[in-house]
Amino acid sequence: MQNRRQWLKNSVGLGGLLLTPSIGLSAKQIELYRPRPLEKSIRLSSNENPYGPSKKVQEAINQAFDHACRYPSAYSSELAEKLAKKHGVSSDSIVITGGSTEGLKAAGLTYAHNGGEIIACQPTFLAMMTYAKQWDAKINWVPVDQNKGYDLQEIEKRVSAKTKMIFLCNPNNPTGTLLPAQELKDFCQSLSKKTIVFSDEAYYDYIEEENYPSMDVLVRQGENVIVSKTFSKVYGIAGLRIGYLIAKPSIASELKKNIMAMTNVLAIAAADASLTDTDFYEFSLAQNKKAKTKIYEVLDYLKLDHIPSSTNFIFFHSQRQIEQLQAQMLQEGVVVGRPFSPFLDWCRISTGTQEEVDVFVKGMLKIYNG
Amino acid sequence: MQNRRQWLKNSVGLGGLLLTPSIGLSAKQIELYRPRPLEKSIRLSSNENPYGPSKKVQEAINQAFDHACRYPSAYSSELAEKLAKKHGVSSDSIVITGGSTEGLKAAGLTYAHNGGEIIACQPTFLAMMTYAKQWDAKINWVPVDQNKGYDLQEIEKRVSAKTKMIFLCNPNNPTGTLLPAQELKDFCQSLSKKTIVFSDEAYYDYIEEENYPSMDVLVRQGENVIVSKTFSKVYGIAGLRIGYLIAKPSIASELKKNIMAMTNVLAIAAADASLTDTDFYEFSLAQNKKAKTKIYEVLDYLKLDHIPSSTNFIFFHSQRQIEQLQAQMLQEGVVVGRPFSPFLDWCRISTGTQEEVDVFVKGMLKIYNG
Repeated sequence: MQNRRQWLKNSVGLGGLLLTPSIGLSAKQIELYRPRPLEKSIRLSSNENPYGPSKKVQEAINQAFDHACRYPSAYSSELAEKLAKKHGVSSDSIVITGGSTEGLKAAGLTYAHNGGEIIACQPTFLAMMTYAKQWDAKINWVPVDQNKGYDLQEIEKRVSAKTKMIFLCNPNNPTGTLLPAQELKDFCQSLSKKTIVFSDEAYYDYIEEENYPSMDVLVRQGENVIVSKTFSKVYGIAGLRIGYLIAKPSIASELKKNIMAMTNVLAIAAADASLTDTDFYEFSLAQNKKAKTKIYEVLDYLKLDHIPSSTNFIFFHSQRQIEQLQAQMLQEGVVVGRPFSPFLDWCRISTGTQEEVDVFVKGMLKIYNG
Repeated sequence: MQNRRQWLKNSVGLGGLLLTPSIGLSAKQIELYRPRPLEKSIRLSSNENPYGPSKKVQEAINQAFDHACRYPSAYSSELAEKLAKKHGVSSDSIVITGGSTEGLKAAGLTYAHNGGEIIACQPTFLAMMTYAKQWDAKINWVPVDQNKGYDLQEIEKRVSAKTKMIFLCNPNNPTGTLLPAQELKDFCQSLSKKTIVFSDEAYYDYIEEENYPSMDVLVRQGENVIVSKTFSKVYGIAGLRIGYLIAKPSIASELKKNIMAMTNVLAIAAADASLTDTDFYEFSLAQNKKAKTKIYEVLDYLKLDHIPSSTNFIFFHSQRQIEQLQAQMLQEGVVVGRPFSPFLDWCRISTGTQEEVDVFVKGMLKIYNG
């Protein structure tokens, strides 16, 4: 134990804000991906990828400046064709959106306004439900199970004539849990005969299980399934606002006319370049894994319960009210996740750069170990 | 007349696609604003500003790359404060949107869903009404007057208990007409006692009348007025998707929660830089005026009736079905505006670069003069 504590002390530079000199990046990687300088407050609160946008993406944005005076629709169609190929669907199955959030909101409005019901688990990513409630949707909240995973049996029980949509976020935000592949697929296939199943796959790329299926497979089979994807996570361009929905053409055309803003020309160029920038993609995954390992280690050391994560964040038992930990971590220079009811003594911490995670680790040691 | 024809022939290089060598730009301006190379089809169909984004704005975008992995809300608040100062309102009166289009749609949904009525003139910019109709709004269409301007008396007559909003686009798209300042102000002041008046000011910057008022003056007075503004026109960044609404806080907070996508980090940086890039602003206005003069001249020469324009486009009597002219102009390499019912033998032509306008002029001479 002493050894381990020693390791943590050494690696995070407890003597001040000195950080580990070995951050695991080669000189070439540093040049390519320019890890961000530490700012006053380190944002580990929004599941962003601090390494983006990559140099290739930045170059693509610069190349697109000549088109930045033009409205985006023509460019959007070109990208939709590429995404359609990637997912094995026709291009009229793709709806490009301003981040996946716009897609979630449009789906909630489209299918649940005026008293329609959405079944969602609690806690989960709230954008769809918060927005739909503004248009008089009813939300049927199903608590997560004892392992903080989806309780699919309970969800199935709740389906009724009032149900307009089931919202699945898998891996789930903020818990980081992943459904077993076959269970997910069987559930979506079966339930989409009764209602629309929405599969939010924002964190799909972080899944480590080999050949874990995207529910785009059910879209290809013509089921009532909507899949959402985003360029905000592993691709590292949350600020550019681009994502997309995959659904059969009859659903996609409905959603397309109901979105408000779509995306923008520079985000389209950036997303297009991202799709072929496999170096950056692999780099982001590797850095995320390394950061999660470091966070697991400090949580193990502090004996704080946590959930194995298939995402770029970790949900852990803070053993104190999250508001208290938020304030304490802010003193240490780190912004952590917001409260996620009903788990108000749990904390969601996003992975940052290795240096940022080191500051988090240092803060945790100070707060929990005195 | 012969002289004039000679001038047109010379200036547009009728011997082929040779263009006028004197395009009125200094070497420094050419370097600064890089007039775009002519593409296969010249887009004079969407009222874009082909000179944007300016070098300063491009630099600002590059400076913002470090923030492009972050969600936009913090950056959006900073810009809102600057815009609030510009318009003399509090920052909670500003709603940043993905182009002004998102603001128009959000307002239509918010105030007219489930059978509410919007009074709008015909023809006008349709984004609000098309979107609101999807949510069961009713549109009360008021034809433009004999001069293709707003018929405010008729609009006032139509106001009833069912009216939720009056949509004014001033200067109006596609007609280019401008309401007399005092008449507009009196109307908005008086009618906003009875319903919400929405003033779409996308083309406001192109108004040549001195001290023409923005209806933000009525927002400052606490009236039920919503003003929309965009960075897509004189600022030349339509592809980046950023605009904003100005309304009193009670209205603004309602609209803010109902937008779906907001804007993006690069657009915020670009808009911020645009606000102080007065050189580009003045340059864009001057180029627009020059292009309009050239278009007026060919229309006068061809004896095609047209409306004096306070915008970056001109609406003219094509004396043939617009679909026919669209096809003919496409043969000449120019995309012109779409049909605007009920004026199906009129055409909306946007200003482009001087070279682009020359290609339009050449096409018109060929089509109308043989």
